[in-house]
Amino acid sequence: MSEIATSDRSARALTTHPFDDDHLREECGVFGLFGTDDAAAHTVLGLHALQHRGQEAAGITSFDGSQFHTQKHGGQVADYFTDQAVLDRLPGAAAIGHVRYSTTGETAMRNVQPLFAELAHGGFAVAHNGNLTNAQTLRRSLVRAGAIFQSTSDTEVILHLLATSTFRTALDRFIDALRQVEGAYSLVALTQEALIGVRDPLGVRPLVLGEMEDGVQILCSETCALDILGATFIREIEPGEMVVIDRNGLTSLHPFDPAPARPCIFEHVYFSRPDSMLDGMSVYDVRKRIGAELARESGVEADLVIPVPDSGTPAAIGYAREADLPFELGIVRNHYVGRTFIEPSDKIRHLGVKLKHNANHWSIKGKRVILVDDSIVRGTTSMKIVDMVRQAGAREVHMRIASPPTRHSCFYGVDTPERSKLLAARMDLDSMRDVIGADTLAFLSIAGLYRACYVDAGRNDAQPQFCDACFTGDYPTRLTDQEDVAGPLDLLAAAQS
Amino acid sequence: MSEIATSDRSARALTTHPFDDDHLREECGVFGLFGTDDAAAHTVLGLHALQHRGQEAAGITSFDGSQFHTQKHGGQVADYFTDQAVLDRLPGAAAIGHVRYSTTGETAMRNVQPLFAELAHGGFAVAHNGNLTNAQTLRRSLVRAGAIFQSTSDTEVILHLLATSTFRTALDRFIDALRQVEGAYSLVALTQEALIGVRDPLGVRPLVLGEMEDGVQILCSETCALDILGATFIREIEPGEMVVIDRNGLTSLHPFDPAPARPCIFEHVYFSRPDSMLDGMSVYDVRKRIGAELARESGVEADLVIPVPDSGTPAAIGYAREADLPFELGIVRNHYVGRTFIEPSDKIRHLGVKLKHNANHWSIKGKRVILVDDSIVRGTTSMKIVDMVRQAGAREVHMRIASPPTRHSCFYGVDTPERSKLLAARMDLDSMRDVIGADTLAFLSIAGLYRACYVDAGRNDAQPQFCDACFTGDYPTRLTDQEDVAGPLDLLAAAQS
Amino acid sequence: MSEIATSDRSARALTTHPFDDDHLREECGVFGLFGTDDAAAHTVLGLHALQHRGQEAAGITSFDGSQFHTQKHGGQVADYFTDQAVLDRLPGAAAIGHVRYSTTGETAMRNVQPLFAELAHGGFAVAHNGNLTNAQTLRRSLVRAGAIFQSTSDTEVILHLLATSTFRTALDRFIDALRQVEGAYSLVALTQEALIGVRDPLGVRPLVLGEMEDGVQILCSETCALDILGATFIREIEPGEMVVIDRNGLTSLHPFDPAPARPCIFEHVYFSRPDSMLDGMSVYDVRKRIGAELARESGVEADLVIPVPDSGTPAAIGYAREADLPFELGIVRNHYVGRTFIEPSDKIRHLGVKLKHNANHWSIKGKRVILVDDSIVRGTTSMKIVDMVRQAGAREVHMRIASPPTRHSCFYGVDTPERSKLLAARMDLDSMRDVIGADTLAFLSIAGLYRACYVDAGRNDAQPQFCDACFTGDYPTRLTDQEDVAGPLDLLAAAQS
Amino acid sequence: MSEIATSDRSARALTTHPFDDDHLREECGVFGLFGTDDAAAHTVLGLHALQHRGQEAAGITSFDGSQFHTQKHGGQVADYFTDQAVLDRLPGAAAIGHVRYSTTGETAMRNVQPLFAELAHGGFAVAHNGNLTNAQTLRRSLVRAGAIFQSTSDTEVILHLLATSTFRTALDRFIDALRQVEGAYSLVALTQEALIGVRDPLGVRPLVLGEMEDGVQILCSETCALDILGATFIREIEPGEMVVIDRNGLTSLHPFDPAPARPCIFEHVYFSRPDSMLDGMSVYDVRKRIGAELARESGVEADLVIPVPDSGTPAAIGYAREADLPFELGIVRNHYVGRTFIEPSDKIRHLGVKLKHNANHWSIKGKRVILVDDSIVRGTTSMKIVDMVRQAGAREVHMRIASPPTRHSCFYGVDTPERSKLLAARMDLDSMRDVIGADTLAFLSIAGLYRACYVDAGRNDAQPQFCDACFTGDYPTRLTDQEDVAGPLDLLAAAQS
Repeated sequence: MSEIATSDRSARALTTHPFDDDHLREECGVFGLFGTDDAAAHTVLGLHALQHRGQEAAGITSFDGSQFHTQKHGGQVADYFTDQAVLDRLPGAAAIGHVRYSTTGETAMRNVQPLFAELAHGGFAVAHNGNLTNAQTLRRSLVRAGAIFQSTSDTEVILHLLATSTFRTALDRFIDALRQVEGAYSLVALTQEALIGVRDPLGVRPLVLGEMEDGVQILCSETCALDILGATFIREIEPGEMVVIDRNGLTSLHPFDPAPARPCIFEHVYFSRPDSMLDGMSVYDVRKRIGAELARESGVEADLVIPVPDSGTPAAIGYAREADLPFELGIVRNHYVGRTFIEPSDKIRHLGVKLKHNANHWSIKGKRVILVDDSIVRGTTSMKIVDMVRQAGAREVHMRIASPPTRHSCFYGVDTPERSKLLAARMDLDSMRDVIGADTLAFLSIAGLYRACYVDAGRNDAQPQFCDACFTGDYPTRLTDQEDVAGPLDLLAAAQS
Repeated sequence: MSEIATSDRSARALTTHPFDDDHLREECGVFGLFGTDDAAAHTVLGLHALQHRGQEAAGITSFDGSQFHTQKHGGQVADYFTDQAVLDRLPGAAAIGHVRYSTTGETAMRNVQPLFAELAHGGFAVAHNGNLTNAQTLRRSLVRAGAIFQSTSDTEVILHLLATSTFRTALDRFIDALRQVEGAYSLVALTQEALIGVRDPLGVRPLVLGEMEDGVQILCSETCALDILGATFIREIEPGEMVVIDRNGLTSLHPFDPAPARPCIFEHVYFSRPDSMLDGMSVYDVRKRIGAELARESGVEADLVIPVPDSGTPAAIGYAREADLPFELGIVRNHYVGRTFIEPSDKIRHLGVKLKHNANHWSIKGKRVILVDDSIVRGTTSMKIVDMVRQAGAREVHMRIASPPTRHSCFYGVDTPERSKLLAARMDLDSMRDVIGADTLAFLSIAGLYRACYVDAGRNDAQPQFCDACFTGDYPTRLTDQEDVAGPLDLLAAAQS
Repeated sequence: MSEIATSDRSARALTTHPFDDDHLREECGVFGLFGTDDAAAHTVLGLHALQHRGQEAAGITSFDGSQFHTQKHGGQVADYFTDQAVLDRLPGAAAIGHVRYSTTGETAMRNVQPLFAELAHGGFAVAHNGNLTNAQTLRRSLVRAGAIFQSTSDTEVILHLLATSTFRTALDRFIDALRQVEGAYSLVALTQEALIGVRDPLGVRPLVLGEMEDGVQILCSETCALDILGATFIREIEPGEMVVIDRNGLTSLHPFDPAPARPCIFEHVYFSRPDSMLDGMSVYDVRKRIGAELARESGVEADLVIPVPDSGTPAAIGYAREADLPFELGIVRNHYVGRTFIEPSDKIRHLGVKLKHNANHWSIKGKRVILVDDSIVRGTTSMKIVDMVRQAGAREVHMRIASPPTRHSCFYGVDTPERSKLLAARMDLDSMRDVIGADTLAFLSIAGLYRACYVDAGRNDAQPQFCDACFTGDYPTRLTDQEDVAGPLDLLAAAQS
Repeated sequence: MSEIATSDRSARALTTHPFDDDHLREECGVFGLFGTDDAAAHTVLGLHALQHRGQEAAGITSFDGSQFHTQKHGGQVADYFTDQAVLDRLPGAAAIGHVRYSTTGETAMRNVQPLFAELAHGGFAVAHNGNLTNAQTLRRSLVRAGAIFQSTSDTEVILHLLATSTFRTALDRFIDALRQVEGAYSLVALTQEALIGVRDPLGVRPLVLGEMEDGVQILCSETCALDILGATFIREIEPGEMVVIDRNGLTSLHPFDPAPARPCIFEHVYFSRPDSMLDGMSVYDVRKRIGAELARESGVEADLVIPVPDSGTPAAIGYAREADLPFELGIVRNHYVGRTFIEPSDKIRHLGVKLKHNANHWSIKGKRVILVDDSIVRGTTSMKIVDMVRQAGAREVHMRIASPPTRHSCFYGVDTPERSKLLAARMDLDSMRDVIGADTLAFLSIAGLYRACYVDAGRNDAQPQFCDACFTGDYPTRLTDQEDVAGPLDLLAAAQS
């Protein structure tokens, strides 16, 4: 029984995913800063740099010393938040922001973050990257106690736990609330006094700290959001750490029981931007190392190495260098596809891939081609790409994937299709190769992936150094909401938000 | 400390009040029906007939047997809800709807009604005409107990009282909630089982019951919303009555202590449509009787009687007939003004009245004119109208007002300016006449108004038969929120919604 | 073979005619002024006052001393031209403007006026009220000579005749062009030196001259456009007169052979605003006289006189006064219908009249009612109104029409349905009464109409004092385009613009 | 004296050039096909593939056997033309289309192509890539003869020459018109009988012929527009050739005096897509050869080769391979910048480059970097890129440009800034290096560019094999409009369209 409110006529446009090229999809990016004029304008730039983490909607909440102000909009950051009139509605020296990619059909504005609550002791705004695994269970008991939810977002559970907490201060209430939730979260929150950042005890999703020349401190999902502002990267927020940034500077708390870190390894494979620094490593460098591992593990005689643009490019460079083969731009991407295919006809929809990519016939014809892509999810794009390259005259097509087979759903804030739609969960390697139509197909090994991430000893199966559940099914937290229900686990994954 | 969210770029357009011709303004109209296909389409028509009660925004919630669906939109009903694609998003055999005029700058969609809550035992939607006089007080204690409000609307207080009620059934919880509120309310609510209508114990705002040929029952603010559907007027909902309409038909409850009725007398003067039946009287007929009373009380020698269009017309007809003078259309109204003056320049804004009205020179020149208007609020329009009629060549201008002087704020769901801006609260009759520039000025007496409403014995000052607080300052309920604060009462009126 | 260009997505919205209540429809209104700052802002107000002459689109061309600037927009004047940013794009001390109602499906912006041409000796903009009856014939020969038309408007023929004229000055070329056209035109034109106004030799469509306090001169279709600016009515432009207004003042020319005037009599019946002065008469006064004539010609015993709002009101006042019966507002019009019924579903479209009108049951029930309307075109609205009044309980319904039966198409700038759809062209009075469902039906006589227009001697059939072709079929000019084709004359009328 | 009409409120948005990264800009791309159902849908795809040749506006004209239909829209192809409702308004088996980048402020729809004229013997639509150098001169004499221009486009001159030609058939008239014009043109035209393609005698702008499996023939600017449809590249249209495609197949005419070809060499440097085949060469291959030439001509000791994305990438690959240095993605481009920076504040505008690019600190720090870009126009982007790379920690920055210095305006359909703003026209190499802030700066030589284009013998200065006027000032045609005026030539270039 739920209310579906869409007052915006253009809502349908939001549901087309422009770069829907068969990838797992990070659901969110967060940004916050404290203590500068034009906090909102800075937040706009930070969110723009994090746009790859969510293109469906964006929101910013600022605090001007007496009032909180919120602006939300469907679409990309630059669509709306670059208008001076919008910025004028976001005054204040502190702000947090959020970009969002939604897994469900609910594109209602009320689900767009930051979420805000007027609590007894003042306002509280929060933006969330991640996903709680016991949100439905907590929500049911909160509703029984009289809570009225305004969204279907799991994040709102945190707000209600905070509102009904018996602790006195906002900070204690926030900690009390977080101790009740399970799952993955990197949060930025804004109160009347402070900017707060917190990362779950396992540190599944990233959150970093930076500083501008004038000492203003920034929290954000990736270091590339510091670069756009000319800010300096200070350090990552530690798993389980809460930082409180206010007039007196930064205070670090560790309110949770200590636990071995499990950062998401897929951030290195695909989610993070190549110019970001993550877990102490350059993302671009790790991706080239992945390519080199792949060349060592699954080398094949060929004439050219071609990346599937744009995400396969660093791995392809690494592969080509290791294999001493020419790196060539054999597939050209049309950057004008944008968010623009509103209500396409079936006929045009069917032409999907061709709208985005074209094989560069003249460099492919008669050649033995190695195609490097970052991952395979449903396999739909791979099929089309291989077919396109063959039609362009390639003599052989060898597909190399810069990650292990993706076989399991993610419950930590990543949009995964139902398990039954994951190609690698449905069939073995040979069948996949046949479906895709390649001459040979190879994935990177788990060990190779860990090596590329500078874990030379490989995965510690007793206590893995990363969350790699999408490859291994080894989930680092309880999945309470999944246990509550009788049906098969993966079928329910689609219902998560 | 409040959050102001306006994600809609066109929000500013909503704040221009097209027919802003110096009238008090009814804030809302409500409509609901149960048990017909296309409940939403019927609701659209009903709200269209109630459009005069609120042009700023409209909303509809339907229930399709398993889910509630809500659509809200700024602007008029016909702007959005006549699109079949919108209706398709409102399936179901039961629906409620609301048109709204807001007194404050907050045009956020989240304040647009119906409001909805997913409660432990199912969804609950409500639409409200009226205003609670202890909403702020209740809200503060609810927030202290952990409630998170999603709007600044007083109506949401009812939802939270309902959610936290310890009674078991939705109906008992609703009654429990209403017993805690003070003020004026005519509500329509929708649950999974029933359409509910309720009117406060004094019956300040109207609510009527109608029936379609096929037995489908309708609740709405005025009978004109029955006419548009070809439905029959059955009766008014009684003050303090709650009706529950479900598969088993209509059940009438009287859950409150009985009290003498105090329906709003200004509905007869201006708010209701002339083709509505209210308190057992034809609104059009009462307005003509008002004109006749006015002619008897304040007759003057003249050549013509001219209505200030369109609201002064019935009283002008009554006046002209009683005075045996020609009724003439001496002022022509331009109906194309619409909701369209988006961001007018100061220059054009300054031409305000001329955009809407023009004096018909050829019938006015050299004549002694009696102008009949329904009321004077700030006096701004009256000044311009008198000036326009004089410039058109009138020899004498006698202004006759079809109501007593408006001297007090309304706290029951009507948009009143601060008391200090009410012309009749600031000065005596002679000063008003001078400010307006008329040769003579007369208002209807309280006794005359009661006589026109068929109360021949006149007002019972010990127990008035109507709420006439805007004329007399005699408020029929406690004004708890006003008492809570130290400042002068009327200054706070502007903060009410 | 024609090009249909609609680049505007909202184009379809333009094709709904909001007040499509079965009236003939004036196609255009024109306005121009010379010699004041903010000429465009003045023009906006003038066009707003002429909005009843065309709601489909509006356009303004200004001249700033070196450049011409044009802005056009679908919809009403106030929708677009009240935005200061739009006015800023229309600088200059001279401007002309146009409001338009289109008879055809072509709502392309290129058909919206003013039309502009860059000629060898400078720019020339023109706005046209009327219709040429030899436009197609002229157009064919111009195209054969190499002219490229940019619109389907007959007005563009004038521009091409001007461009290819062998005369030297713009004025001589304009006169040369006009001598070649037949039909009805009231034009305002703008050159680099002057504002020009011209009325066809028969003066079919109106055009008046006014003056502001500072001596600035104005040309416009009706005097109500002078009132909105506080300007004084000077005189009507004479049939066949051309006035040239420039830095040296006004020059009057009479470049055509003199002919007896034939102004459109339907302007008095319906087109013009009641507060306008036309052909030396007050439109409101003539309409009351029409009502009185009607009462004398076709009186009937009854209890009430009710106008079909709003156009039937003055005649109903005149009728009621002559018949000594009460004038009552028995039908209430919903002013919120606006331009807003975008893509209505068939279901809602079918409810058409009810959306706009409601019978005031309480004053009609059991009464013998006289309904007064201005005209009957297709009869569709009349049927619904009579039915609505009967359902509201009227004992008898007597329909009185304030004009003779409309039996013929207009070729002079009025939107008439095909002749086969005109009720009065299809059947006799008794059949019409039966179709409409009234107890009695009467139209005003031609003689009565002329008497109401102060022609006591009645119509001079040899040389009629007005153009009354829609009633009589007596067309005052050649209909060259009609003669050129073999088909029946009226079927072709629909193809005219 | 010209009319500036912008009726579209969103017009301003069109004037922001999203990828305004200091490049010369091709003004147009054309596409046409004949003889297939859904000709318009095919044209949409073709134009989408040509989007890089013009993002400001797009238009399509189709012919359905009896009528021509045109749709035009500001913005990118996918914004509007992927809507089925739009395609439904473009029925027919033949269509032509156009994408446009405008050099002037005039973004009016009437300038968007295809242009259409209803001529005496039928409709004629035309789309133009290129620019006429005697358009103003011809226009003046056409206007003197009575022609009315509806646009400021030079293309319309062709239509008027055609309309006023004394030849009998459309084809003869078209040839007659083209014999009078000078300059560069690749045209596709549509008549009631045929699709016509024509290339100016020097073949300055490209135009190719392709064929679909079912024999349907296509004309388009580049071969990449064939690929998107799965069509086969047949051949280039020859300089001076006119092809007529109708029911009887293709007819080739050569109506002009033969002349040595002078195709634009800048198409190879930057305009054409890397996956296109042009002048018998793969664009991608030529660009890699350019990089290799550059490495040979201007090698320097360094650690890395980094492309300025995306246009510098093929040359950087060629450079790195020739120099045996690592090719690295040292600059990451943010693809979400889109067309979306509507009315940015000055503050945000000032951050321009950072919004689009970020240096990949982790791969640059402490390194000697070779940056490869395709060209330098104003130098503004180069300055910012070098500064960004230095701030990211590069030890040395060596800028290598994959073309000779751009010193002269183009009059053949390319948007060039005034000559005074071209960096290479203002200063020598050392000064440029200082302004840009690089350690060393080198351009490719003219000889190197010709060698890369497989002209091993180098440029024939007596009869150059390409149009390279932007580098050499050696214009292959008369510049009649320039000669007509007294002022300096380059200042006038900006006024060309």
